[in-house]
This record gives sequence, C-alpha cells and structure tokens, in this order.
Amino acid sequence: MRAQVLKSYDESMSSNQWITAENIAEPKLDKSTDVIVRIGAAGVCRTDLHIIEGVWKRFMDPDGTRLLPMVLGHENAGWIEEVGSDVQGLKKGDPVIVHPKISDGLCLACRRGEDMHGEGPFPGVDCNGGYAELLKTTVRNIVKLPRTLEPRDVAAHADAGLTAYRVVKKATRTLLPGQFCVVIGVGGLGHIGLQCLKSMCASEIIAIDRSKVGLDLATECGADHVVKADGTEVAQVLELTDGKGAEAVIDFVGERGTTVTGLNMTRAHGTYFVVGYGDDINISSAELVLTERSIVGNLVGTWAELTELMSLADKGRVKLITKEYALNDANQALRDLYAGNVKGRAILVP
Amino acid sequence: MRAQVLKSYDESMSSNQWITAENIAEPKLDKSTDVIVRIGAAGVCRTDLHIIEGVWKRFMDPDGTRLLPMVLGHENAGWIEEVGSDVQGLKKGDPVIVHPKISDGLCLACRRGEDMHGEGPFPGVDCNGGYAELLKTTVRNIVKLPRTLEPRDVAAHADAGLTAYRVVKKATRTLLPGQFCVVIGVGGLGHIGLQCLKSMCASEIIAIDRSKVGLDLATECGADHVVKADGTEVAQVLELTDGKGAEAVIDFVGERGTTVTGLNMTRAHGTYFVVGYGDDINISSAELVLTERSIVGNLVGTWAELTELMSLADKGRVKLITKEYALNDANQALRDLYAGNVKGRAILVP
Amino acid sequence: MRAQVLKSYDESMSSNQWITAENIAEPKLDKSTDVIVRIGAAGVCRTDLHIIEGVWKRFMDPDGTRLLPMVLGHENAGWIEEVGSDVQGLKKGDPVIVHPKISDGLCLACRRGEDMHGEGPFPGVDCNGGYAELLKTTVRNIVKLPRTLEPRDVAAHADAGLTAYRVVKKATRTLLPGQFCVVIGVGGLGHIGLQCLKSMCASEIIAIDRSKVGLDLATECGADHVVKADGTEVAQVLELTDGKGAEAVIDFVGERGTTVTGLNMTRAHGTYFVVGYGDDINISSAELVLTERSIVGNLVGTWAELTELMSLADKGRVKLITKEYALNDANQALRDLYAGNVKGRAILVP
Amino acid sequence: MRAQVLKSYDESMSSNQWITAENIAEPKLDKSTDVIVRIGAAGVCRTDLHIIEGVWKRFMDPDGTRLLPMVLGHENAGWIEEVGSDVQGLKKGDPVIVHPKISDGLCLACRRGEDMHGEGPFPGVDCNGGYAELLKTTVRNIVKLPRTLEPRDVAAHADAGLTAYRVVKKATRTLLPGQFCVVIGVGGLGHIGLQCLKSMCASEIIAIDRSKVGLDLATECGADHVVKADGTEVAQVLELTDGKGAEAVIDFVGERGTTVTGLNMTRAHGTYFVVGYGDDINISSAELVLTERSIVGNLVGTWAELTELMSLADKGRVKLITKEYALNDANQALRDLYAGNVKGRAILVP
Repeated sequence: MRAQVLKSYDESMSSNQWITAENIAEPKLDKSTDVIVRIGAAGVCRTDLHIIEGVWKRFMDPDGTRLLPMVLGHENAGWIEEVGSDVQGLKKGDPVIVHPKISDGLCLACRRGEDMHGEGPFPGVDCNGGYAELLKTTVRNIVKLPRTLEPRDVAAHADAGLTAYRVVKKATRTLLPGQFCVVIGVGGLGHIGLQCLKSMCASEIIAIDRSKVGLDLATECGADHVVKADGTEVAQVLELTDGKGAEAVIDFVGERGTTVTGLNMTRAHGTYFVVGYGDDINISSAELVLTERSIVGNLVGTWAELTELMSLADKGRVKLITKEYALNDANQALRDLYAGNVKGRAILVP
Repeated sequence: MRAQVLKSYDESMSSNQWITAENIAEPKLDKSTDVIVRIGAAGVCRTDLHIIEGVWKRFMDPDGTRLLPMVLGHENAGWIEEVGSDVQGLKKGDPVIVHPKISDGLCLACRRGEDMHGEGPFPGVDCNGGYAELLKTTVRNIVKLPRTLEPRDVAAHADAGLTAYRVVKKATRTLLPGQFCVVIGVGGLGHIGLQCLKSMCASEIIAIDRSKVGLDLATECGADHVVKADGTEVAQVLELTDGKGAEAVIDFVGERGTTVTGLNMTRAHGTYFVVGYGDDINISSAELVLTERSIVGNLVGTWAELTELMSLADKGRVKLITKEYALNDANQALRDLYAGNVKGRAILVP
Repeated sequence: MRAQVLKSYDESMSSNQWITAENIAEPKLDKSTDVIVRIGAAGVCRTDLHIIEGVWKRFMDPDGTRLLPMVLGHENAGWIEEVGSDVQGLKKGDPVIVHPKISDGLCLACRRGEDMHGEGPFPGVDCNGGYAELLKTTVRNIVKLPRTLEPRDVAAHADAGLTAYRVVKKATRTLLPGQFCVVIGVGGLGHIGLQCLKSMCASEIIAIDRSKVGLDLATECGADHVVKADGTEVAQVLELTDGKGAEAVIDFVGERGTTVTGLNMTRAHGTYFVVGYGDDINISSAELVLTERSIVGNLVGTWAELTELMSLADKGRVKLITKEYALNDANQALRDLYAGNVKGRAILVP
Repeated sequence: MRAQVLKSYDESMSSNQWITAENIAEPKLDKSTDVIVRIGAAGVCRTDLHIIEGVWKRFMDPDGTRLLPMVLGHENAGWIEEVGSDVQGLKKGDPVIVHPKISDGLCLACRRGEDMHGEGPFPGVDCNGGYAELLKTTVRNIVKLPRTLEPRDVAAHADAGLTAYRVVKKATRTLLPGQFCVVIGVGGLGHIGLQCLKSMCASEIIAIDRSKVGLDLATECGADHVVKADGTEVAQVLELTDGKGAEAVIDFVGERGTTVTGLNMTRAHGTYFVVGYGDDINISSAELVLTERSIVGNLVGTWAELTELMSLADKGRVKLITKEYALNDANQALRDLYAGNVKGRAILVP
C-alpha cells in the first residue's frame, strides 16, 4: 500500500522533503482483538514536526536506531476494513475514528478510565501510523461515527480535537459565569478548544493569536474578545479582567514566550493550563505560593472523552476547519504547517 | 407606605383575597450594616402560595401566632434608598438585586460560602418582605446591577432564578456531552433553568411540561427535545435515551406525580434533583441501591451564585419572561399563578 | 466438584435447608481471557438471603425459570487454577481475590472506570458462583494478593468489603475534621466501613447497632461514639451533634426502620448513603428541599477500588472479623446470618 | 506594652539583632467589630526571616518607607482582652486562636469562603503583629479554643499549621490507598502536615529531610518511610514507588534544590504542591505535557479551615512540637530558626 515514511530526523528542519512516499506491506491482523482501518483522512499535527526535528527522539529513541523508518500519522479516521475474531459490533465499511493510544484495558490507569496513561504503543509516534492507506489498531481504539459524520470531517479530532476537548473539560469543571478564560493560539487545537469552551461553560472567553487569520477564526468560533499577541497581550488581558487576570489560561502554543505571558495573565488562585510545548516554564516559587496559582500539564484525552467529543461534533457544536491535501502531498502539508500557513487543521486524504 | 399584607392562612385556598393592601410604617435603619431598598419589582412565587396555604406554617409558625400579619415578597430588586453608617460603595439610586436570606457572615456556613445555610431571617417568609414600596435588608444581601440591567428585568432572579441557577450549576459539574438532562416543569424556575443549562453544558436537554405554553417556552429557551406530560412522559424519555433514562433529572414541580416519574426517568448512576415540592419521595431502598442513583434536595443559591447569575443576565444568556402586575393587583397575580395562567414569572411593580 | 446449590426460592424463609450439597461438573475455560480459580474461601452475604427469599427474583427471574439451579457465592478468593491463552502475568497457585462483576471492558461504563455499571453476569447472583471448589471468571476480575494476605483473610472483601469501601470513599471525599459520620449497622459491611472511615478521614465517627456484639465490634474498629439502636438513636445522635445531625450517615442496614431514622439524623446539607436494603425510603419533597439534603444509593465498588482496598488490608488498616464454616455447612452459615448470630462476616472454606 | 519591632531590613542576614525590644502604645478598639487579644504565644516563622531579608519588601514595600517600623508576628493565640460593640459571643478571658488575614467578609473571595484571597491587612506582615503583649484584630479572625487547648499549645497553628493543613486537605481530596505522598521538609510546617496526612488519608507517606532531627520527627509523626536528603532522595523515592514516583509531593522547603527534586519524584499524572519558597520552579513544557503533571501553589488556609484544624488538635490527632522562648528572646528564636536549630516550631511567650 502507499505510505508516507519518516526515514531520518532533521534537527535543523532544513530539508524540503522530510518524509518519503513508499509502497509498503499491508498490515495484518495479529491478535483476536485487532482491527484494520482503511484511512479516510489523517491529521497533520505539530507533534509530527516535533518528531521530525527530534524532540521525542530524546525520550523514545535516544540512539536513533529504534523507531525509524516509521509511517507518521497519529490522528486517524476511516472505515473498518477487517476485524479480529473476538471483535463484535463492527463490520467492514463502518465509519470510525481511531483513538491514538493503544491500551491494554487491564492496567490500573485503564481500569480508572485514564487509558492514555497506561503502557502501550502510539501509532504514528512509536510505530506505523495513518499516513497510509491502512492502519492496524485494536477494538479498544475504535469509536463508531454517527451517521452525521464522515471520516474526513472528524479525523483531526482524534488527537488535536481530543487534546483540546480534554483541557477544556478540565477547565470548565470549575469555570463560572463572570469568570474569564484565555485561549492562547487559535490554530489546529485552539479553534476546537474555543468551540468546546463556548459549548461547555458560560465564562467570558478571550482569544489571543499573532495572526489576523487566527483572530478572525477566534471570532468565528465564538470568542467574546480577541487580543493580538503583539507584546501588549498581558496588558490587554489585565485590562479586560479588572487588572486581575483570568481564572483559567489555556496555552495551545507553549513556545515563543507564551509560557511567560500565559502565567502573567493568570489571576491569583487561577490555573495556567499548558498544552502546546517547546519553551520552559519558569516562575519563582514565592510568586506561585503568594498567589496560590496552579500550572497544569495536559495530554490527549481518553477513549470516553473521544465519544464525548464526537457527540459535540454530531450536534454541530464543534466544527473543524480543515485544509485537505492528497496523501502524496504530505511534505507540502508539513511545510505549510511549519510556516504557519494552515488555517485550522491540515489533513491528508489517501 | 403601601404594602400587601398576609393576615391569615387559607388552607383550603378558597378565598379570592388572600392578601390585603395596607398603609404601614416605613422600615428604618437599625444596625450600621442595614440597607433600605426602594422596590422596583417583587417576584410572585409558588412559595408565596405555599405560605398562604400553611405549608411553611407547620415548620415556622405551628400555633399560628408568630408570623402574621406579614408583608410577602422574598424576590426583590430596586434601588438603594438609604444605607447604614458602615456601608461602603452603595449610594441612593444604585440599582440592585437583593439576595433573599439575611446571613450573619460569621457562622461556619457563611464562612464556607454557603450563606443561605446559616441562621437568620428570610424577608417575605418570616418577616416583612418586598410586596411594598420599601424593604429593609443588609449590605450582605445587595448585589449591584450592571448598567445593562433594570430592577424589573431581574427581580425574579432573586429567588426563582437563583434557585434554578444553583441546581443547574450542581448538575453541570458532572454532565458531559452525550449525556441527557431532563427539566420537569417549564414555568417560573424551569424557563430560567433551561437557559442556564444551555449556557453551562453541552448535554442534550429534554423539557417536560403539561401545557402547550410551557412546551413552547421550552423550545424558545433552547430545549433539544420537548415532551408533553400526558402520562407517557417516562416512556418518551426512555425512548430518547436508549431505554436507559437521563443522567440528570431536574424536577421544578415536585407535585402531581413528578417525584415518581422523575425518578423513573433517571438512569442508573444518575441523579434526580428535586426543587419544587409538595409530594412525597418514595422509592424502595433495593431499587436505589441496585441502580446506585442519587436524590438531591436543592435550596436557593448563595450570594456569590447571585453574582454569577447576574453575569449570565448581563450577557443576555438568560432572559426572564415576566408578566407585570401593579403592586395593588397582588391577589390577581397570586390567583393567576395558582391557576397556572402565568407564562414565566409574575412580578409586582409598586 | 462439590458445590452448594440453590434449587428453589423460599419466600417465607421457613426452610432449614435452603441450599443443597451436590457434585457438579467442573467449569471449563471457554474464552481466551477466562480464568478458573480454586476457591480458598467464599463469603456469606445478606444478599444470599435476599436471593433465597426472592427479592432479586422480581428483577431477574420473574417467572422463576431462568436462574435456578444455581451455585451461590459472589464473594470469592482463592488461587489461580488455569488461565486462557491470552492471559498474562498469572500462573497456577497465585493467590487472588475475585471482583464479583464480569465486565466487558469496552462499554462506556467500563471505559470510564465504573466497570460494575456495565452489562455482564454476576457469578453467584445470576450464574454459578463460589460456594464450590472451582469458579470460572475472567482476567478482568482478578486482583493478585500481596504476600501478606491469604485468600481466606480477604474473601469477604470481594463484595462486603468492596461495597463498604466504595461508600466510605464517596463520603470521605467531602468529610472534614469537625464533622460527623454515622455508621448504622456494625456487621459484615459495617465493621469494614468503620475501619475504612478511620483510615481515610478525620471526622468523628458514631456507630449505631442493636446488639452489644455490634457495639463492641464498633469500639474495636475505632468508632469515637457508640449508640445503641433502642428507639432513642436519633435523639442520641442529635445530642452528640449539637442538635443538628451528622454531615454523613451511612446505612448498612436499610431495613427495620433505619431509612427513617437514618434520614432523621442527617444534618441540613448532609448526605444519607444507603447501602443495605429492604425498607422503602420515604420523605416529603418539602423537607428534602428545605434542608437541601441528599440521598445516595451505593453499589459494589470497581476493580480499581478492590486494589485500593487490598492496599488497606495489606497495611493492616482494615482487618476482617470472620467466622469460618466448612463448605458443607453452608446452610448453617446462612441460618446463623439470618438469626443475627455472626460477628463480622461468615465465610465458607472448601 | 512590650513589643519586638523590626526597624530595618537586613538583606545580608548578617546582623545578630534583627529586631528591637520597645515599649509601644497599646492598640485601641476602632471599629465596632474589632477585637483586642492578649497574646498567649506567637509563632516564629520562616516568613519572618523572609520579611527581615527583604523578600516581601519587593512586593509590598519597594522603596522601603511603607512598612517599618513594624511589630512582627503573624501566628498568634491568646485570650480575649476587649471587644467592639457589635461583637457577640466573646468575653474577656476566652482562649482563642487568631486567623492571620483580616478580611472584609463582603468581597467575592470572602463570599466564596476563600477569605484569605480578599484584600486586607495581614498583621505581622504589613501592620503590627503579635510579637507583643496585645494584638488588634477583628471578630472575623477569632476562633474560640475548645477547653482541651491552651493558646501556647496551638499558636503555631495560626499560620504554620493552617498552611500545612490546607495543602494536605487539597492533596487528600484525591489521594487513594495504594498511592504515595511525599513530604519534603519535616520542620515547623512539615511535622504538622505529616500528622494531618496520617489522619486524613490512607496513602503511603514518605518523608524527606536533611537532618536526623527531622527524620526522627517524621517517624514520630507517622511517616511510613523516611528518606535522607543526601542527593539520592529522588532515586530512593523512585525505588519505593516502583520507579514511577509519588502521586503527590508536598514541598515545605522550596529552596536548596527541592523544586527540582520534588518535581522529579512526582509521578505522571501526579501533582507537585509547593508551599515553602525561595528557589525558582523550572521545567520544560514538553515534559510537563507528556507526563500530564500539575504544579500547585499553596497559601495559608481559610478561617473555616482553622476551625477544622482546631478540631484535629482537640482530638489529639495533631500535636505541635514547639520550643518556647520568652518574648524578649525573639532574636534568639529567629537566629535558631535561621540556623536550623529548632525542632518543630519556635514560639514566643510574653
């Protein structure tokens, strides 16, 4: 089958052809709970860029011999192609979205519902993913789509959407009317996060982005205020919030200074949620203690959360802005993302 | 000043003139934290009917000599008229809404933020209320209105709205997308509850009412499904919820059988919230245990919750449907409420 | 193998021989995730009596043809005997405790960690259980025991302990120092609940029982106050709690009037947790609303909660008081339980 | 009256006489809610050292002219001396402990129960405190002591105890049996925190300290494991926790490297609570995101929490280890604290 394969890291990000189109063997069912999915669309994620530039190599492939060559693509939706002998309720052709983490269902993390905290592979990150025609996963990763949704409409929810949804769910468990929530970065994750926020709480939403594209998208997605990240964003947020900052700040960027500005616009007793990554977080313990603020790291959501997000999508409360590329144009999609030229989320369609 | 006074209970509810127009002395400042409010509007509540028919007499006035004569009206908004010597930040003419319970601020309930659980009078229920030109309350009861809101726009929030808001806030702390919330009764409280739900969570909302007026109001207020209470309502809710019932059921009626039907449409592991009252709640312990359901009683909200609700009103997310009566027509308003002829909430305007 | 079989219901509970000793076929592995456990001990539970007298028949076997004959015993521990081909990490002879509910691991309840809320059999309640030499269950039901614990030391934790632990865990999520928790009934569940409470919160514990045996056991298990259930128990709890009642009341009995007394000793804004069952729960909606109390039904705990309870047992924080009977004396054990002559929990040892 | 006054900052901490004994005017009642307390004991806190060395000057007294001279002492207990005209239920001689923050009771923070997050003075930090014979405070700050407790037994609870209690309360809301909690630093706060942890949850407690005195105190206070902070403490905690770290780490030190080691021993999905301060907190956003950890700042507790802590003290569940000094020996107490020569908490007795 056709696939887009990462064959070497590029720490300088100087290449024009990070990944390579190849014909590789089709995946086969192995265990009785395995499932093969025919890819309908695969999302292109900043994490793919981080993998290419070796950020994850440090943790997962220190000597560079363990992972590559690897098919990228951890954000997948499509149709059931084939199922193992113990899989019930799924048949060829069913439209599905694929939870990205393969979990065993037996460890304590899984048994507490936090399946992405268990051990197990993460296709597209540490084994072959969905930049291809077929993907091997398991019955535990499959969420069937309602009739209203097509794989290409939702592929980007499998990771971007699910991560944005989870952090918003955390934040909205305590956000109240009259309080403020800041969203930093209105791109692939941020534009979903904004719509989730709008649906799930009645707090006032302030969206921050560097670009006009991002700010316009924020308005479309229901932000109550938009703030241009031009160096005055902390001052602007303080002005909107009586000089005190927001009760919740969700940082979908995590680089180019946002871990500093994000914390500086977080109110006393408030929480700074970090989702995007790249920069360090640095704050004096005295300041954190005296203001009793919290800093919360955020991962992709659980399988149950993916069903919750599909419910939002089904009702039309969260719409993905996507830009389609042919599978063969994967490098173009990655380059556009790297250059900041994608509105919403890029997806590859085989 | 003019006031509408309850002079005797009417357990049979057979009178046409439950309360009496009188001229009574104006209230005077007593403690340094007292505040006199010029009434802009006072809501007419089913609790007023319950007071008249003696439901509260049982608890608060068993021998009938303690409370009457009493000015009714526990749901008040207006303008500051006069403030005690220790009151800061309020001046004559400021538009305000009045939290109904007078709390001391020092007991453990107050110190934990649950001010309505402390000891203290409840004007209009156990001392003179707001069916009058002036009302005496305290600085702790005052919430200043934003410029967007007039007293008559919000009076009914002081009790009806605040109670509806609190129960919705409780329910939405756990309600998730893909889950269901039933609202029983789309009257004075229910139509506010629906709008709060719509603003504060992304669950699917099913509204139930006996009347076409109520069902139309439900649709206006954002219900996803409306169900006529014609004896088939449990079956209809089960059909909408895959045969399992709703994760949360909020019963704003609590009489005419809703405590039975409400519980019967609550899913295993779900919660039945009772707000309206009248009937008994009766369920076998075996059934409650085997399904692990909860039954939660709900009171009026806290002062802080009143500020949260005012924020919703300020943003236009919750609009009151009210029917205005002159203060002198208080009996007419009460009769209309008793007969089920009020859409939304009745208010008295001096 | 030897087994104790229920062959007919006895609604009058008048027989002396409710169940019958028989030789039945040994269970066989069927699915690749099945596990056969050699029983070390099986707890004897009030639910067994309720099954015999037909309480569950109503829900699960209305025409009396579906369930019997059935081996009772839903509270089991022992040693691994044989495992299916996909089971890893378990080998013959490993000491284990068995979670009572067989869950699929794939439904939304399981995926949220609430495995006992999914569909699936409950051995000893709707299919053959552990009053026998061998029991068939699945890998998802197995918790390996730490070296400090023997199967007969912990069997009664599989249901009694797990139920008591779960309700205590719920209650202690909000109980604070200075608050009160009442435990009604210091028998098989209550004596475990008391020890869990003592370990997991610093609230003041009041234990209520009808018998001196129960009250002595309560003191042994760490109750701060013991109250005899002699008709004055509500008054005694009110006296211990400043006339206000307890923030949490956990009712392990649920019959002989405790659903009334339990609610009457629950403070305003407090919660009545019902675990034992038999009586109806009956309260006026007005009273529940005016006091803002909650009534919470409680089921057996999750698999994860069974591991938490095993951790308490491992540290010696929760000790079971058990009375051993030979498997062949099952009827004697059931009769002793029915007559109130068991201190702690009865267990059957093959 | 006699008082110990800070007259100038000492950023180098090189003086031997940081504060000066003086005779100053007695405080007078001003508002009707004021209360004068005769000091029974005043705790000596690391924050006093931080004030002397100018850490707080940066935030509160940037040009050095606003605060000094000031009587230190923010951790006070004693007996009622005199009360304002609106104060009820308190009379001369009543033993009391004093909540450190003066709050207005009317702001949103106070109304939500988080009184220490409102505006208002903090005696001993920004106005005269309790290193003296008398202290002026308000009725809102007073907690009456039960008969079992003397002011000198509890003074150190007013800040050290209350801070330790609050962070432990936060942590224990989610800590479960089988999980681990690390306490870094077994001094004035840590030894209280350990006892609170032991009383309020059943998790396994690991205490870390540099000194044998601290480690012995940890064992006395109920730690399950003690670990010497000798450079191997992260490795030791990982070994005790299956290589994964602890679900909660409470850092009562916050300097000399503990913000690094503390985070490094926090498990994925776990929380690092910082209480002591001095060092910066520094972590890569990628690491925080990939492990989904949280970092939580912690302040002194609320008034309600002080009553909860007094309940623990009343039951003997939390005992203070104190070292008494005469008021005149304040400099000696401060020097001993600075040199690490105080076991538990130093208190000054007038």
